[in-house]
Amino acid sequence: MTVTAAAGFEAASVAAGLKSTGALDLALLVNRGPSSAGAAVFTSNRAKANPIIWSQQVIADGDVRAIVLNSGGANCFTGAQGFQTTHATAEAVAEHLGVDAGDVLVCSTGLIGEQLDREKLLTGVATAADALTTDGGEDAARAIMTTDSVPKTVTVEGPGYTIGGMAKGAGMLAPGLATMLSVITTDADLPAAELDRALREATRLTFDRLDSDGCMSTNDQVTLMASGASGVTPSTEEFTLLLVDACSSLVLQLQADAEGASHDIQIHVHGAASEDDAVEVGRSVARNNLFKAAIFGNDPNWGRVLAAIGTTSAEFDPYAVDVTMNGVRVCHAGGPDRPREEVDLSDRIVSVLIELGVGDAAAMILTNDLTHDYVHENSAYSS
Amino acid sequence: MTVTAAAGFEAASVAAGLKSTGALDLALLVNRGPSSAGAAVFTSNRAKANPIIWSQQVIADGDVRAIVLNSGGANCFTGAQGFQTTHATAEAVAEHLGVDAGDVLVCSTGLIGEQLDREKLLTGVATAADALTTDGGEDAARAIMTTDSVPKTVTVEGPGYTIGGMAKGAGMLAPGLATMLSVITTDADLPAAELDRALREATRLTFDRLDSDGCMSTNDQVTLMASGASGVTPSTEEFTLLLVDACSSLVLQLQADAEGASHDIQIHVHGAASEDDAVEVGRSVARNNLFKAAIFGNDPNWGRVLAAIGTTSAEFDPYAVDVTMNGVRVCHAGGPDRPREEVDLSDRIVSVLIELGVGDAAAMILTNDLTHDYVHENSAYSS
Repeated sequence: MTVTAAAGFEAASVAAGLKSTGALDLALLVNRGPSSAGAAVFTSNRAKANPIIWSQQVIADGDVRAIVLNSGGANCFTGAQGFQTTHATAEAVAEHLGVDAGDVLVCSTGLIGEQLDREKLLTGVATAADALTTDGGEDAARAIMTTDSVPKTVTVEGPGYTIGGMAKGAGMLAPGLATMLSVITTDADLPAAELDRALREATRLTFDRLDSDGCMSTNDQVTLMASGASGVTPSTEEFTLLLVDACSSLVLQLQADAEGASHDIQIHVHGAASEDDAVEVGRSVARNNLFKAAIFGNDPNWGRVLAAIGTTSAEFDPYAVDVTMNGVRVCHAGGPDRPREEVDLSDRIVSVLIELGVGDAAAMILTNDLTHDYVHENSAYSS
Repeated sequence: MTVTAAAGFEAASVAAGLKSTGALDLALLVNRGPSSAGAAVFTSNRAKANPIIWSQQVIADGDVRAIVLNSGGANCFTGAQGFQTTHATAEAVAEHLGVDAGDVLVCSTGLIGEQLDREKLLTGVATAADALTTDGGEDAARAIMTTDSVPKTVTVEGPGYTIGGMAKGAGMLAPGLATMLSVITTDADLPAAELDRALREATRLTFDRLDSDGCMSTNDQVTLMASGASGVTPSTEEFTLLLVDACSSLVLQLQADAEGASHDIQIHVHGAASEDDAVEVGRSVARNNLFKAAIFGNDPNWGRVLAAIGTTSAEFDPYAVDVTMNGVRVCHAGGPDRPREEVDLSDRIVSVLIELGVGDAAAMILTNDLTHDYVHENSAYSS
């Protein structure tokens, strides 16, 4: 049910012809209310796609009636013509639904640097607007896929209300945000400001901790829409906890489907002086190609972990660091400990525990290995 | 002739048994004077190998009589035992040559996290000390190789004096420094302070601009030793220019031999507000795995160039950027320009010109593509 699991939401998806394969490539999601509160967080990339520029304006007043998402093209680096396409798409949605275009979010994903076919897009919007249904969530999760091999969806039940979500993303997965599109809906009744606070806290702990390939997208957007249809107003604390659950599930699904990956790596950093330090250390390891290639080769090369940590500004002493890989402490106090042969890296899930020993802060960063298939998929993407 | 091209230097290389292949793995280079001035720059990685920690002390007074380099092990993350091995190596060199151990630099390269065999190392030093010769430079360049496929050497003739150099490095090539060892000798007569100034300027413009895989080593060291045997004291300006020439040659050789690479990419950033901005922009592109994989696939994916620039803090407007690849301007003012099909990326050398259009500063960053062979070599290195 995904984004239509919560009461008050309808969705429809169509094959508008933006994908050459003829697969679903346009999803429309409408909030029927009574509330139209919303919040969104966006890529921190300074080169932003046209739908990001548009959507940042739309979300400013916390009011969202609909969101339209397309795959088959990112509409990024497409200049004034591209922005007009985004604008025209929102106008078309508004016209068909009888809402204000200023309350319509737009998301696009796919190749950057090429114009979207505006006619196909507008025709697709018209078709979708006539097909809206309360069980349209599953198809919507398929319509936003690019190189994803499976749709990513989640439903979390709260006391008297529901949170549902979908996400796409298989490459360019790096904060902030992890490169993807995600829409999360709820029938809880919360004002936009509280949705915004909950969403920022949840993305900070989930999407922002996924760093598959260090490449930050131009099109990232996580949107949260609340219909209020359940009539329940939870505490922000409770709602945030459930939202973190929902986002965590989506993030693990994104990691598991990362382009070409053969290992899902969890980097746990403990004993840091601050959470920022823990995140920086985890990310430095997550972005180290030599470490990632070693994991692909089932090689517990802990020296590359320490070499990566050494590039950070985090508080640490190289001769106080312990590194444990899949339960085997291979490095103690910055020197060799258990033999690396004891580490079994044959499973897809790999756990790397880095103990800095200088404080009490911790963070987990999720990443993937660097594989032949990653190189292959990303050398062939646009051809 | 490499490091023995300049008068006053003798070198010897031996197979000490550190490499399991039986290849040359230890080089000893001595400065017979009359001057013993020297300078060195080191990795900025905060996790430093034992020979780096030692050599930073040795160079402090600008006096260097000898340098001993081994492949077959980096002596990094090897704790007190590892540091004692470095110390004992310098002591052995000092004893055999009749110099002070505090004037003996030590460099190590190879796998990190494993102890070097101290006995083999000290036996190798004794053998090398008895075999020093003024034509030992070529063998020295071979003895320091790890995954390098060819030795890297250079000789530059100045008016009345000579600069010779060698370098090794094929992976972990990222500033500062580009991950490698290099020794440069000259028979010019310059005091240590001027050598230091010349070396910092030269490495800033050469070694620090090579960023093959974004992975910073723990063992980088570039050493400059002057014997004064020519009796010529050039101006620092002239000497620096020739030193830049020598370093440039070595850096291009390192780039051309980078592990698994199929393209040598020159990223020219023009029109930046400052040189720092130009370097940051160039480096962001050089470290973008998606861009590097695209070049491997001969795909002129300029959108990935702009997406990478967007992650920097450099002054720029995404809608004012031009990108030209191998002479074809594929992006103008942040939008599509010439068709990407016009770009021929079949040659090994690839030129990417990024025109930011906000100032007059420029910089060039050298990198390589991300290939199947890179993944293969670095997933198998330690096994």
